[in-house]
Amino acid sequence: MDAFLKEAIREAEQGAREGGIPIGSVLVIDGEIVGRGRNRRVQDGSAIRHAEMDCLENAGRLTADQYAKAILYSTLSPCDMCSGAALLYRIPKIVIGENLTFQGPESYVRSRGVDLTIVDDPECVRMMRQFIANRPALWNEDIGEVGDG
Amino acid sequence: MDAFLKEAIREAEQGAREGGIPIGSVLVIDGEIVGRGRNRRVQDGSAIRHAEMDCLENAGRLTADQYAKAILYSTLSPCDMCSGAALLYRIPKIVIGENLTFQGPESYVRSRGVDLTIVDDPECVRMMRQFIANRPALWNEDIGEVGDG
Repeated sequence: MDAFLKEAIREAEQGAREGGIPIGSVLVIDGEIVGRGRNRRVQDGSAIRHAEMDCLENAGRLTADQYAKAILYSTLSPCDMCSGAALLYRIPKIVIGENLTFQGPESYVRSRGVDLTIVDDPECVRMMRQFIANRPALWNEDIGEVGDG
Repeated sequence: MDAFLKEAIREAEQGAREGGIPIGSVLVIDGEIVGRGRNRRVQDGSAIRHAEMDCLENAGRLTADQYAKAILYSTLSPCDMCSGAALLYRIPKIVIGENLTFQGPESYVRSRGVDLTIVDDPECVRMMRQFIANRPALWNEDIGEVGDG
């Protein structure tokens, strides 16, 4: 498996151990991880710290030139918010672990010129299926859905 | 002027006093402000705390039912990231102080069913024009643009 996707999965697994939503992300520039993050809704009571947002925040203030060389990895298809963050910073490439359990606005993101790669990784799917089955209300909250599952 | 837009402007003014980027936001539900925020790139070294994001974070974890009644106010047209956050949470209405100095993906957001109101407020325009003239590099960083202005 892609070593960077594996690091994103490690973040997701750490999130699960913390009782959080198992989604992880890393930001890679010139072959090095410059930021890593995981969903912190539970851990920090956060409405905005999806994995990709946490990752971008932890990467710190970067220049447009740096973002232009970046690849964003996420274990799950980025939602509207996280896709929007990638568009804001013109990150040219996103590698997505899976988009079976949730799919963000991939067509729109592609129409804005972003290269999306869907890995279809079984471990990413397994983590999310297990989480959604166990914590449907928490999952619905995280994606803005009505209902307790 | 709309009293809630005025509160968003107060947040922007507070940001300016802190040496930050003068953009402010409030979230209103059932006629009450449930969250307020301002751009914190400078103050917190944050890549994700645009005014609307800071506001949503400060509002805390809300349910889909609460977001469905919410109005997001911002002194400036929301960028891709902040528009995406509003779409994630299906916030049905956004009131925008001005979109002359910067315009986010308004057409796309409208196509997703969000009601956007552009106030064209001269005070919002004045704050941003002054800031952009004084700090072009910081402004470019905030909107993912190359160059130091």
